[in-house]
Amino acid sequence: MATLSQVRAARRADASRCRVALVGLGTVGKSVAQILQGQRDESPLQLTHICNRNVARKQASWVGPDVAWSDDIREVLATDADVVVELMGGLEPAFELLRCALQSGKAAVTANKQLIAEFGLELQQLADDRGLYLGFGACVAGGVPVLSALSDGLAGDQLTSLRGILNGTCNYILSRIEHAGCSFDDALAEAQQAGFAEADPGDDVDGLDAGAKLAILARVGLHVQTSLKQVTCRSIRDVKAIDFQYAAQLGYTIRQISTAVLSNDMIHMAVEPTLVPKNSGFAKVSGSQNLVVSSGQFGGETTFGGCGAGGGPTAVAVVSDLLQAAHRRSYPSRRPARTAVISRKATTDVETSHYLRFVVRDRPGIIATLAGVLSRHDINLDAVLQQPGYSKAELPFVITLEPCATSRLQPALAEICEFDFLVESPVRMPIVT
Amino acid sequence: MATLSQVRAARRADASRCRVALVGLGTVGKSVAQILQGQRDESPLQLTHICNRNVARKQASWVGPDVAWSDDIREVLATDADVVVELMGGLEPAFELLRCALQSGKAAVTANKQLIAEFGLELQQLADDRGLYLGFGACVAGGVPVLSALSDGLAGDQLTSLRGILNGTCNYILSRIEHAGCSFDDALAEAQQAGFAEADPGDDVDGLDAGAKLAILARVGLHVQTSLKQVTCRSIRDVKAIDFQYAAQLGYTIRQISTAVLSNDMIHMAVEPTLVPKNSGFAKVSGSQNLVVSSGQFGGETTFGGCGAGGGPTAVAVVSDLLQAAHRRSYPSRRPARTAVISRKATTDVETSHYLRFVVRDRPGIIATLAGVLSRHDINLDAVLQQPGYSKAELPFVITLEPCATSRLQPALAEICEFDFLVESPVRMPIVT
Repeated sequence: MATLSQVRAARRADASRCRVALVGLGTVGKSVAQILQGQRDESPLQLTHICNRNVARKQASWVGPDVAWSDDIREVLATDADVVVELMGGLEPAFELLRCALQSGKAAVTANKQLIAEFGLELQQLADDRGLYLGFGACVAGGVPVLSALSDGLAGDQLTSLRGILNGTCNYILSRIEHAGCSFDDALAEAQQAGFAEADPGDDVDGLDAGAKLAILARVGLHVQTSLKQVTCRSIRDVKAIDFQYAAQLGYTIRQISTAVLSNDMIHMAVEPTLVPKNSGFAKVSGSQNLVVSSGQFGGETTFGGCGAGGGPTAVAVVSDLLQAAHRRSYPSRRPARTAVISRKATTDVETSHYLRFVVRDRPGIIATLAGVLSRHDINLDAVLQQPGYSKAELPFVITLEPCATSRLQPALAEICEFDFLVESPVRMPIVT
Repeated sequence: MATLSQVRAARRADASRCRVALVGLGTVGKSVAQILQGQRDESPLQLTHICNRNVARKQASWVGPDVAWSDDIREVLATDADVVVELMGGLEPAFELLRCALQSGKAAVTANKQLIAEFGLELQQLADDRGLYLGFGACVAGGVPVLSALSDGLAGDQLTSLRGILNGTCNYILSRIEHAGCSFDDALAEAQQAGFAEADPGDDVDGLDAGAKLAILARVGLHVQTSLKQVTCRSIRDVKAIDFQYAAQLGYTIRQISTAVLSNDMIHMAVEPTLVPKNSGFAKVSGSQNLVVSSGQFGGETTFGGCGAGGGPTAVAVVSDLLQAAHRRSYPSRRPARTAVISRKATTDVETSHYLRFVVRDRPGIIATLAGVLSRHDINLDAVLQQPGYSKAELPFVITLEPCATSRLQPALAEICEFDFLVESPVRMPIVT
């Protein structure tokens, strides 16, 4: 291990390159280090510091002798690094690290979606005030450069909505339920065994992971001040194999879809299991693939797809941000955030078609009863589907509705939940047409 | 019509905004003007000049009185505009306009793919030398921000190939042949009637339009010095309804595909009718939609799709570039081109699977004869397909080949072309797997 003074001497000869301190050497951190180490001499980036807990255990032979290792982030902040890459995850001490880095004049790059969803505006302000670069392209959709495309390439449009598949774990679980006909619990166990789901899968399956990404995506693409709290997150835990069968009859499949829509000076943001057409791009997304579709007033729909997770793709996003940071360092100018974000009231109300699945103890008149409630709330039925072969004691069937506001549907569903013929709570999913 | 001096007085109060001179008021020009006119006062862009032939005929009531009209591009160059938008098309006087604009210190934005394919490097050099911005995002894939995504969001990857559908006219014609079972000529006539093809369709159907876009795409994404001359362009004129039938039997359809691949320090660029899997994204592309798939060493495949033509989408790309130009004006720094392009030898040789369609006067032993020639050239057959119901005097059948270099196939095909049982030249298409 090179001492800090040896490292400093070696680096003095190389003052033109942007010195990168990497904090967190997990899967993504290793990939970032490997890309930086593998680059030719003319690269504007130079990996100078790696910081990780138990640093002795992490040190790898492919890292050059001119890289200083440390397990203390205060040491990193005290170095002459030009940019700090935060890949620890979690809110603290990640937030403190980036705050201190920016305050001490270092640029900052992170792949930490929770942090940016929660404290992104604060960090951006700090960076803008000092003319420093803050990069967080890796926070959303991994290697898919959707954030930079929204903020630069589509800047000339007025985007009105963003819709995407932003979580690979849910892709895996929903595909397993669809193709193996198994339960959510079995699909989750399989995903955990295959390494596609965490021991505690809540963030993924209940929508918080995708919700944080959606909040960032909407902030950048729709120029709205957003937070994870404004995102309605509904779990995929209630989705069953029977839902895929009914969805297929309608020409649909089911995915965890993240949606942000501007309407009437409000913003609606939701992450929830959703029916998507079988022949749509969303239906084809599998594994760790992500897909984002933006809709603009002038440019229509634009799609961005690719690897949403994994060391390599996420590292590409980090290194792309590092190249921006290096560029800003070589050609400084006080660049504020391109477009100010505005505050919009968040609404949970949105007009959409719905899929409702009931499981009932069958008896005559149930559909008439349900149709009566919906009718009294001025909600029109679109279709009623009932597959044969199920027990009368636990009969699943489906009603689809014509587009109506969720605010109109919710009281109707509250009434319906009181009926004693229900074996379990009705499952409601929006339908993307 | 406001006089230039009235306009100057009105503008003096507004010195902080970026003054935009628009040259060419066709479909895209009108959309750009409408977006700029419709923007709020806080927009950093201000449309100050419009230049077009027969300007009196073009003047529209929705353009504000503070915009000066002219039919002389020399007048535009003499104004105080900060950026010139070239939307005339053609090589001259478009090249002269942009050259003079940059030389007189104005930033330049263009949607002219022929111009940038041919003179892009020269104009970029001129812009870099003066610290000026040159924007050409609208040249490739219209509203799909693929150029900015490649140069910024994927900058951290090493891209190895780009593949795309870049021409809507060919989408239309090929889809018609596929679904109506008609001839190329009938499909072209329909496309012309529907306004999807020009009176002279050569640039579109013979691949020059897509070729120019591919040269720009490869220059930006693969960092290679490219020109349209290096692109192998093969027409879609030879594609027949029977080819779609055979392709369908194999699980494929046919699209005009543009490909740029780096291999062995060479670059291969081609635009040609190609078999693509029925379940691939390429097969789903229709109308004016474009789709580009990049492959990177670290990030894997990334896809970009959306509206590749039309006033609105192309105008979004132009206005996005204008916002970059305005930003550069407010926060100047001498920014050279991010990555220098390197020179690579272009090769027409590439390893791929092939589809060969023959039309023959049938007699015993033809397939044995063809198989014998291919075998002598060390080329392996994959499948032989022959649909029933065709005349023996004009029998179409298909041979598919295992992957082999085109340089190996070409002499074999030259030999085959000598056989007197051929009614027409064999049709060869690569297969994307």
